[in-house]
Amino acid sequence: MEKREQLYEGKAKRIYRTSLDNQYWVEYKDDATAFNGEKKATITGKGELNNRITAIFFTMLKQRGIDNHFIRLLSPTEQLVRQVAIIPLEVVVRNIAAGSLAKRLGMKEGTVLPQPVVEFYYKDDALGDPLVNPSHIKVMGIASEEDLAALERLGLMVNDVLQPYLRERGILLVDFKLEFGRTPEGEILLADEISPDTCRFWDAETGEKLDKDRFRRDLGKVEEAYQEMLKRLGGEAHV
Amino acid sequence: MEKREQLYEGKAKRIYRTSLDNQYWVEYKDDATAFNGEKKATITGKGELNNRITAIFFTMLKQRGIDNHFIRLLSPTEQLVRQVAIIPLEVVVRNIAAGSLAKRLGMKEGTVLPQPVVEFYYKDDALGDPLVNPSHIKVMGIASEEDLAALERLGLMVNDVLQPYLRERGILLVDFKLEFGRTPEGEILLADEISPDTCRFWDAETGEKLDKDRFRRDLGKVEEAYQEMLKRLGGEAHV
Ligand SMILES: Nc1ncnc2c1ncn2[C@@H]1O[C@H](COP(=O)(O)OP(=O)(O)OP(=O)(O)O)[C@@H](O)[C@H]1O
Ligand SMILES: Nc1ncnc2c1ncn2[C@@H]1O[C@H](COP(=O)(O)OP(=O)(O)OP(=O)(O)O)[C@@H](O)[C@H]1O
Ligand SMILES: [Mg+2]
Ligand SMILES: [Mg+2]
Repeated sequence: MEKREQLYEGKAKRIYRTSLDNQYWVEYKDDATAFNGEKKATITGKGELNNRITAIFFTMLKQRGIDNHFIRLLSPTEQLVRQVAIIPLEVVVRNIAAGSLAKRLGMKEGTVLPQPVVEFYYKDDALGDPLVNPSHIKVMGIASEEDLAALERLGLMVNDVLQPYLRERGILLVDFKLEFGRTPEGEILLADEISPDTCRFWDAETGEKLDKDRFRRDLGKVEEAYQEMLKRLGGEAHV
Repeated sequence: MEKREQLYEGKAKRIYRTSLDNQYWVEYKDDATAFNGEKKATITGKGELNNRITAIFFTMLKQRGIDNHFIRLLSPTEQLVRQVAIIPLEVVVRNIAAGSLAKRLGMKEGTVLPQPVVEFYYKDDALGDPLVNPSHIKVMGIASEEDLAALERLGLMVNDVLQPYLRERGILLVDFKLEFGRTPEGEILLADEISPDTCRFWDAETGEKLDKDRFRRDLGKVEEAYQEMLKRLGGEAHV
């Protein structure tokens, strides 16, 4: 398996073709963006930390029966994944009110939700990734009703695995964003990443934020927080 | 039946108690507001026009089997309705992309939707009446899954009656907002109003807007447009 040409450069990762036509080479970058690209910075070490954290989560999820695109690590900042056609929806699952949910529903940040909330956002930077409902998704022709039900079910299954797993490691899983794709065989597969860039992690004792909110809200110690998350997951970064 | 004390003054109507404990006296005002109350004006004659237009729509809907709160007209600007506990959701049904849907999904205003879109907005002025999805509604405890299904079904039924009815009168029903309440017996009942304040009506030949967008977008001839709508519905206002 060899690395071939770059296919896509996103805000956080670069995707390369490989000599195998159903596998992609993913390189995690140190770049950080927030507020739909308005705020930008480089966080030294973030690429390696998110690459390793994603690998740990995806390996663990596969062991618990939730298949996903992760194949193996290629280097500290790179991993091999199965190629999918990304469904242009962000599937967000929330256990505790924070961020846009707290704002939308007028809830105090930190309010424990009586049950997980599932949201779909339309992946479109020009539109600012708007919240969409099942009716919007249907008229856009993005996903069928069965697909949507599958995405919701998978989102809740990931939550049911991640929440206790993290709780045992002293972390509250506040919310997270997933992306799914379709394999050439038409199967819906969990893809993209699960990292402090795409989740809210709060220390269960102190409430300290160990995620991208440190960057969004200028709380400092961003890299340290990501390091701490990797440590809690039992991983180690090359220093 | 006598008029008693005022219970509520909204942006467009005043609600009074009556001597009957399950009936309200509604007075339609000439006041117009837009953009969550930021823009305000008085539109002479609007109260009478909306009172009459709502009466025509609700009478017609009842005849076609869609029960609602309307009982009878009391005066040019007043009507008697059944008292309900309003469910704090705006149920919006759309046939053609316009307004916030066009913006949200990046569609050109005027795009005919392949099927009606149904949306729920949380009635909360302080929050700006945000779009909410079934998951939000569930955690807020506003409506059960069955209630939501009933609201969606009723919204689509109203659309199925209003759309051809208006088409025969040379009007395209672009979108509309409904409110529902619960009767003391626990039944979900269509309430509030159906008027140019709460719908988008376009002349089928010229595309001319015959609704509140004339006010929102400073297109002029607001009262004339509401008058024209009443005329198309076969009604007549006292000049
Ligand atoms: N297995 C996969 N196959 C194909 N594409 C993938 C796969 N996993 C993730 N992607 C896509 O690769 C890109 C990853 O880059 P990155 O996360 O930097 O994107 P981004 O800046 O978040 O922008 P966007 O997600 O809006 O494209 C995303 O578009 C993501 O949806
Ligand atoms: N049958 C009914 N029983 C009780 N309340 C009703 C009934 N029909 C309508 N209402 C309520 O009466 C009020 C009507 O006033 P109006 O339309 O002016 O309100 P508004 O300014 O739109 O504000 P809001 O709807 O946010 O209260 C609304 O709150 C509406 O929900
Ligand atoms: Mg991304
Ligand atoms: Mg109103």
